[in-house]
Amino acid sequence: MFSSIKRCLIGRPLKSNELGEQKLNKKKALAILSSDALSSVAYGPEQILIVLITVSAAALWYSIPIAAGVLILLTALILSYRQIIFAYPHGGGAYVVSKKNLGVNPGLVAGGSLLVDYILTVAVSVSAGTDAITSAFPNLHDLNVVIAVLFVILLTLLNLRGVTESASVLAYPVYLFVLALFILIGVGLFNIVTGEVSPDLHTPVGTPIAGISLFILLRAFASGSSALTGVEAISNAIPNFKDPAPKNAAKTLAAMGILLALLFSGIVYLAYYYGITPRADVTVVSQIAEETFGRNFMYFFIQGTTALILILAANTGYSAFPLLAVNLAKDKFIPRMFTLRGDRLGYSNGIIILGISSIVLIIAFKGHTEQLIPLYAIGVFIPFTLSQTGMTVKWIREKPKGWIPKLIINSTGALISFTVTIMFFLTKFAQVWPVLVFIPVIIYVFHRIRNHYEAVGEQLRITACEPSVPIEGNVMVVPVAGITHVVDNSLNYAKSLSAEQIIAVYVAFERGDEKKFEEKWKEWQPDIRLVTLHSQYRSIIQPLTKFVDTVEHKASESNYRVTVVIPQFIPKKGWHNFLHNQSSLLIRAFLLYRRNVVVTTVPYHLKK
Amino acid sequence: MFSSIKRCLIGRPLKSNELGEQKLNKKKALAILSSDALSSVAYGPEQILIVLITVSAAALWYSIPIAAGVLILLTALILSYRQIIFAYPHGGGAYVVSKKNLGVNPGLVAGGSLLVDYILTVAVSVSAGTDAITSAFPNLHDLNVVIAVLFVILLTLLNLRGVTESASVLAYPVYLFVLALFILIGVGLFNIVTGEVSPDLHTPVGTPIAGISLFILLRAFASGSSALTGVEAISNAIPNFKDPAPKNAAKTLAAMGILLALLFSGIVYLAYYYGITPRADVTVVSQIAEETFGRNFMYFFIQGTTALILILAANTGYSAFPLLAVNLAKDKFIPRMFTLRGDRLGYSNGIIILGISSIVLIIAFKGHTEQLIPLYAIGVFIPFTLSQTGMTVKWIREKPKGWIPKLIINSTGALISFTVTIMFFLTKFAQVWPVLVFIPVIIYVFHRIRNHYEAVGEQLRITACEPSVPIEGNVMVVPVAGITHVVDNSLNYAKSLSAEQIIAVYVAFERGDEKKFEEKWKEWQPDIRLVTLHSQYRSIIQPLTKFVDTVEHKASESNYRVTVVIPQFIPKKGWHNFLHNQSSLLIRAFLLYRRNVVVTTVPYHLKK
Repeated sequence: MFSSIKRCLIGRPLKSNELGEQKLNKKKALAILSSDALSSVAYGPEQILIVLITVSAAALWYSIPIAAGVLILLTALILSYRQIIFAYPHGGGAYVVSKKNLGVNPGLVAGGSLLVDYILTVAVSVSAGTDAITSAFPNLHDLNVVIAVLFVILLTLLNLRGVTESASVLAYPVYLFVLALFILIGVGLFNIVTGEVSPDLHTPVGTPIAGISLFILLRAFASGSSALTGVEAISNAIPNFKDPAPKNAAKTLAAMGILLALLFSGIVYLAYYYGITPRADVTVVSQIAEETFGRNFMYFFIQGTTALILILAANTGYSAFPLLAVNLAKDKFIPRMFTLRGDRLGYSNGIIILGISSIVLIIAFKGHTEQLIPLYAIGVFIPFTLSQTGMTVKWIREKPKGWIPKLIINSTGALISFTVTIMFFLTKFAQVWPVLVFIPVIIYVFHRIRNHYEAVGEQLRITACEPSVPIEGNVMVVPVAGITHVVDNSLNYAKSLSAEQIIAVYVAFERGDEKKFEEKWKEWQPDIRLVTLHSQYRSIIQPLTKFVDTVEHKASESNYRVTVVIPQFIPKKGWHNFLHNQSSLLIRAFLLYRRNVVVTTVPYHLKK
Repeated sequence: MFSSIKRCLIGRPLKSNELGEQKLNKKKALAILSSDALSSVAYGPEQILIVLITVSAAALWYSIPIAAGVLILLTALILSYRQIIFAYPHGGGAYVVSKKNLGVNPGLVAGGSLLVDYILTVAVSVSAGTDAITSAFPNLHDLNVVIAVLFVILLTLLNLRGVTESASVLAYPVYLFVLALFILIGVGLFNIVTGEVSPDLHTPVGTPIAGISLFILLRAFASGSSALTGVEAISNAIPNFKDPAPKNAAKTLAAMGILLALLFSGIVYLAYYYGITPRADVTVVSQIAEETFGRNFMYFFIQGTTALILILAANTGYSAFPLLAVNLAKDKFIPRMFTLRGDRLGYSNGIIILGISSIVLIIAFKGHTEQLIPLYAIGVFIPFTLSQTGMTVKWIREKPKGWIPKLIINSTGALISFTVTIMFFLTKFAQVWPVLVFIPVIIYVFHRIRNHYEAVGEQLRITACEPSVPIEGNVMVVPVAGITHVVDNSLNYAKSLSAEQIIAVYVAFERGDEKKFEEKWKEWQPDIRLVTLHSQYRSIIQPLTKFVDTVEHKASESNYRVTVVIPQFIPKKGWHNFLHNQSSLLIRAFLLYRRNVVVTTVPYHLKK
């Protein structure tokens, strides 16, 4: 039953050699990997204005130079990541690049912060999208958390179905959003050019403003640069592209950069020209749309696609998290299960863990995950800095043909990212300090896990010089609860194995019991030695373990192996298991994990 | 670690022969078994007044004749249960009495409704007590549910420690409550006799009242008789008494009846004389206490002990539920685990299940369990009726010496209980109908469980005519994941058992893998046959099961047994288990439950 539900939700299992068909073409890749970056246009410009308005409405003209700064940063990042794509065609991303060029620990800092960051991406963007929807339908407002959780579940299922299928579903909203914003910006600019918008709504650029400080400007810049989260997704996901993967990825990255730059500058400019001030209840994009169209179809079209893309931004996390996890798991820093492909060839464990973690975050923050945005932004800029620095080091070390321009691009990227990171710490320390606690902790855990795997590998490796000692003989211990077919079945089995000794053990709770059972036994199985144990504390495990220990001690002296043969009857229906004391399971777990004995379970299948 | 926490919470395990020391003397038994009945004095009189006030304040004089009716009912029940105690000295209770005299299904109706009733007892009385406490400290009010749950956990732990120890702790509050109410009634009566209370506060008994109807009076009587829940507890718990158990139980029952009658009539009379009307925010007992003492120490003493005894009333459920469960489990109507005594000789499983179920109820009703009171009352009166009818039938059938008075007592008891039950259905159908759904369902479940146990017993019983067929030979299948010490260890073991055939199975996910592994294997273990399977769907279990099926099919033809030998390495620390795919566990569960093969786990303990 479970498996048919699974079939229905995520589709039939795929064969390993169908992997190629699951790869992405450029159009789908752009949709699936850039929704996070593009969606930030919906809130990035507003973040800048929110900081500037604390000075005065006149100060809003500073949004123009700040946006220019953000565009420069964007250009640097896009160019830098383009280089990474070609240098690490098997999927680079900050973890691989930093590890290869800067060492293991910088790599882990980058990988660890991205791992958590993708969880934040999902939680934050789904919550934001849900907010946008429930703002439109206020009577759904109490169900915010439930709706957000349902969206996460939906995204998880889509991704478990596989990368191309989810891309097909997700591509439309992304392109619709881009189309909607282009129409908005186009009509807006047309109105400005034709003079339909009064030019007196804004302060001219360059007007001196009292009270403006470098700190405010830096803070506004840091806030605005949170619009750049997500640009690293493509370089992480190169293995998902159709061949030639690096080339296709680079083209997709360029397309994304251009789209993002156009939309971002368009929105900032319209907001500036319209003299829009940020308001708590209406977003900046919504204000621009209302100014431009009034409350007609186009307004709702823009609002609707914005809500959708905010939710889909989460999908970037779903594309990037599992691939990053595979890289970390291959290096043994996180559990090996993340390297397994599921029925539909996606890395299901990563997808599921991501879904569960973000649901936990959404529930823990009751859907108000916007408090996590600064944390989320710094979690992106730390890996940005590390990977660009790594590339810089790489060029200096390797000096390939034409390395100077590459060096300049990457070192500029590193410098800018580093500056933004520092700005975050300086201007928003109250929100970003947890990163300083959390990164050392996660790195410690990474190392603990790796040490364990290394130790296990060491112990399992067969070395030629260590010949295995053959076992001389076997002692079989059969715990019996009565004279039944189940016991008979197990004894039969034990007898067939030519063990040196078979001992049946009966644990009695009451004194009279022992004698009676011994007599019955002698009549039934005179050849098999019966040991009766008395349990004062009504526990089977305690006296049995003690007995097995004694037997094991004696047996090991002559290199005999002890096997405990557990008779177990298997009921026909699952619910029947509740009706039987699961002693055999308990005995098995106890003996196997605590003692050095072999545990054999002999099933006796009931017919009704 | 788990076991030391357990030691600390519930004490060291007791030997089976220490059982005698856990028995109750009369004083402790009265405290532990009558807290439910006595606590109902705190709300029983109020229930009557709440119904009467719907007519008018003048109608409140009817509380006197109604209370007289309740006292008659109480006398009949106490006398009837006294007879049950002597007739069924091993612990009667409605289940045993009804089953023996009326048949299995009436017994199950009684047993089933009591089983659920005890859960309701715990949930309702703990919630009521918590309410009383948080009314005194209003800033705790939001924590109602948490506090109630903590009390349930505390009671569960006390009862897991064992009956006498919990009795010692619980006896004080019960006796303090009785003392407090006696002082209240004494001082109140003294004030009335000395004329300090105006005799004009109440309407004289017998004043004709407009609008009073038989329906109202019956409803008031039914409500008042909910004060009698809990009187059956003693007859259920006879095995907990010190010898001579029946005599001690009968004396305790009598003492409880007298105390209950005195307190009940005292409170009803004072409420009537003071002309107290029920109010939503202050209880009737609290009003009486305030009238009598003002808000001084005595007032708070009465309020405090009342709150305590309401919580302790839950303890009656803890005494009775596990014993009833033992009786039902011995007859195979509920899972066998309820018959096992725990470390401290209490029936731990019953105690734990009761605790968990009532916590679930408290959380589900968010602490407002007062809606459950009528359901809870009818759940007591149905077994009352059945057990008294059972006793009536017994006397008619057996006709022992002096049976006529016994017959009269029990048939009167049966008649009155039956009348009250009918009244509940007539006057409060909206609240009590679930009992009509729930009783058939639980009886169906009881029979299903018993049928299963019977069928299992039938199948396990060894009959002389059925000789077991000896096994001719063994085939061992060893799934291997690589060339490691773990595999070596398992092969060694398989070799030592002189099986007719040993087959190693390797499941490859990628085509190249198979060849490579076969070559390595040939070099390492040339004597052992290796079968490699290719898994297109990246699942180990599917191809392995298919292979085992084929082997099993062939083997069974010549009466060979198939054993799957699973190599399992056991990490040194618990958390390490998260880092390894638990394939061996999965394989084991799958093969054991679905196929007829023996599963042997060969542990390989890691040293670090």
